[in-house]
Amino acid sequence: MSKLLIVGTVAFDAIETPFGKTDKILGGAGTYIALSASQFDVESGIVSVVGDDFPQEYLDLLTDRNVNLEGLEIVKGGKTFFWSGRYHNDMNSRDTLDTQLNVLAEFSPVVPKDYINSDIVMLGNLHPAVQLSVIDQVENPKLIVLDTMNFWMDSELDLLKQVIAKVDVITINDEEARQLSGEYSLVKAARKIRDMGPDYVVIKKGEHGALLFHNEEMFFAPALPLEEVFDPTGAGDTFAGGFVGYLANTKDTSFENMKNAVIYGSNLASFCVEKFGTEKMLELDKDEVDQRLESFQALTQFEINLA
Amino acid sequence: MSKLLIVGTVAFDAIETPFGKTDKILGGAGTYIALSASQFDVESGIVSVVGDDFPQEYLDLLTDRNVNLEGLEIVKGGKTFFWSGRYHNDMNSRDTLDTQLNVLAEFSPVVPKDYINSDIVMLGNLHPAVQLSVIDQVENPKLIVLDTMNFWMDSELDLLKQVIAKVDVITINDEEARQLSGEYSLVKAARKIRDMGPDYVVIKKGEHGALLFHNEEMFFAPALPLEEVFDPTGAGDTFAGGFVGYLANTKDTSFENMKNAVIYGSNLASFCVEKFGTEKMLELDKDEVDQRLESFQALTQFEINLA
Repeated sequence: MSKLLIVGTVAFDAIETPFGKTDKILGGAGTYIALSASQFDVESGIVSVVGDDFPQEYLDLLTDRNVNLEGLEIVKGGKTFFWSGRYHNDMNSRDTLDTQLNVLAEFSPVVPKDYINSDIVMLGNLHPAVQLSVIDQVENPKLIVLDTMNFWMDSELDLLKQVIAKVDVITINDEEARQLSGEYSLVKAARKIRDMGPDYVVIKKGEHGALLFHNEEMFFAPALPLEEVFDPTGAGDTFAGGFVGYLANTKDTSFENMKNAVIYGSNLASFCVEKFGTEKMLELDKDEVDQRLESFQALTQFEINLA
Repeated sequence: MSKLLIVGTVAFDAIETPFGKTDKILGGAGTYIALSASQFDVESGIVSVVGDDFPQEYLDLLTDRNVNLEGLEIVKGGKTFFWSGRYHNDMNSRDTLDTQLNVLAEFSPVVPKDYINSDIVMLGNLHPAVQLSVIDQVENPKLIVLDTMNFWMDSELDLLKQVIAKVDVITINDEEARQLSGEYSLVKAARKIRDMGPDYVVIKKGEHGALLFHNEEMFFAPALPLEEVFDPTGAGDTFAGGFVGYLANTKDTSFENMKNAVIYGSNLASFCVEKFGTEKMLELDKDEVDQRLESFQALTQFEINLA
């Protein structure tokens, strides 16, 4: 079984969408990645930090799904990272209402001894300095996958570029790819980003799917068109968790297998948005996941015989 | 060989994009549809109108591609329909700078005797009264495909709904689908539009691909990610022309075959946007079309073995 190391926030979120609002609920990139990856038979551990205000019940949700929490620091007297946001009517954009870094402000990640030899390292969206520190602590991973966002491009570009230079796969959204590369065409943007280091570039387009670029090859996975998108929070992280979970489970990091990983990631992300926060991911069963994979096949597969 | 009747404008366009601008060049929905459908071995005829200012050279371009022009009325002393537009930097939106209906204002379509028994009727974007008149003239077509736009929803909704009730397939873009149905979710929008008449709904999402809906089934064709989009004019019509051209050529209007038709339409549309106006469509050769179809396959096809 492959070992998967996940780095990312474990947090409280408060979310408003046109369909309703929540109080502080379980959130964070690390949480979504871990829950999504736990759909696969993998040995995963998370490196993150919370305060001692973080409920045992949430920790149990993760350990119940075989997520190793040895690398999750619990700061005595500290408060857990909190994010609050409001989605606009089209669900494609949101305003951040509040961000309280709390224990995250001083976080110095320590990779547990058992995870120093991880096969796959998933660097969820976090300060690039934290991501760099984790890269320095692991030994010869087969694959390092980076997720990041425009916030770090605006505030820590030099450091972020150091991280980008050291990873195999980067996942970012279309606007961020354009910002990072200075190119409008996503084909050109992906090429420029590959020149910065990663062999594989995944460009997430939200409801418009995701593109995987490698050398001069491209692969595209649509997002499943849904009756209702309830809350987009965590969809990108769920995608990333499904992507690395599938790769870790199959122990195959070839481009061909990454196509499947992109499909699995898209499939899991399609569930995430159907309920508030992590709710849907916590109740998912294998049958419904497999059934929807069949919908993905029906959605995209065709047979044309070229003369 | 199937007979394909095309109704749509044959026009002059003047186009501005961030890459340059043109004088009056060959344009019009009917023109793009006919050029695209002519990639297939079909017997196609066009019903439209021009003034006697329309150059013989342009007419020859169509007849050279076996497009029957018997139904193209040439109004003595009349001026051809003229449209001028300017695309914004992202190429996803445009301003109309000028529209001169000219001979189109009084157009009363006459379907040539040989095309009254057409197998497939493609109603390109035009006044719904013209589309209705053509539907009334043809006898028992196997398939009627309608393309329309928000302009007619704003100005002639009742008449447009009469047309929609009589067609088998409707192709519109995502914003128009939302406007017509009052639903934001495209899944719900397609269902409501099917309730208005058409068994098949194609929702065009420009650079984000196209969705085909039928009963509770969906199929998705991505747009091929391109290095450069030079001029989006005519892409939707080229898509429609490829769609009906393929169906007419294969004489199979099943949902399974429509999936292929959507792929062929997307493939041809990907060429259309690479040069100004009809330029690229006029120089296309079969090898390059087939090669790009292979790119479409590589872009979307994957193999997952579900347990």
